[in-house]
Amino acid sequence: MTKAVNLSEKLAQFDSHWTPHIVGRYNENDLMVVKVEGEFVWHSHPDTDDLFLVLKGEIDIEMPDKTVTLGEGELLVVPRGVEHRPVAKREAHLLIIEPSGTPNTGDNETAVTKVAI
Amino acid sequence: MTKAVNLSEKLAQFDSHWTPHIVGRYNENDLMVVKVEGEFVWHSHPDTDDLFLVLKGEIDIEMPDKTVTLGEGELLVVPRGVEHRPVAKREAHLLIIEPSGTPNTGDNETAVTKVAI
Repeated sequence: MTKAVNLSEKLAQFDSHWTPHIVGRYNENDLMVVKVEGEFVWHSHPDTDDLFLVLKGEIDIEMPDKTVTLGEGELLVVPRGVEHRPVAKREAHLLIIEPSGTPNTGDNETAVTKVAI
Repeated sequence: MTKAVNLSEKLAQFDSHWTPHIVGRYNENDLMVVKVEGEFVWHSHPDTDDLFLVLKGEIDIEMPDKTVTLGEGELLVVPRGVEHRPVAKREAHLLIIEPSGTPNTGDNETAVTKVAI
């Protein structure tokens, strides 16, 4: 499956917020695009860092000791175990990378199912 | 080190081609930006996939059975073990991800040293 993945085209395939869609895999990680708006839940991932790259718009990543604002073309890696809450005042589009099977909320009971598109 | 990484600002810090610069780490992987122009060498990575995301410009990823052209906002994962040669007719800017310590040419003898910026 060596084909180009156009991120904008993938994002145009859905409207829902906070539902990561898998667009590829890199080693044991899912490459996902997601549309976000509003406040997500506070959570952390004990076993993995969390990578956010903003493709469109702006997002705040709130952490216990500070908030990092990311604009288009900016990325942040939240270290494993660090509590964080993504907040977007307006719709933003992100590329995120997590090991396959990582619950997006940090908790299998509340996590959404990530679908491949 | 939870701070925003602005990819354009990082790319503005150097002019050299085919020299990946580390801008962050995600688990055991280096997140790198690189400027490319011309032909790289044919190579493969036996132990890792190779992720290319085009931030600016266009690049061809030549593989034994086909060539994939990537424009801005497009990504490709070259599976581990697959021979490939990146070629850019004009300067292009990429985000690439590889496990820390992966030689960019697939060969420690010819690989460049990746520096953090």
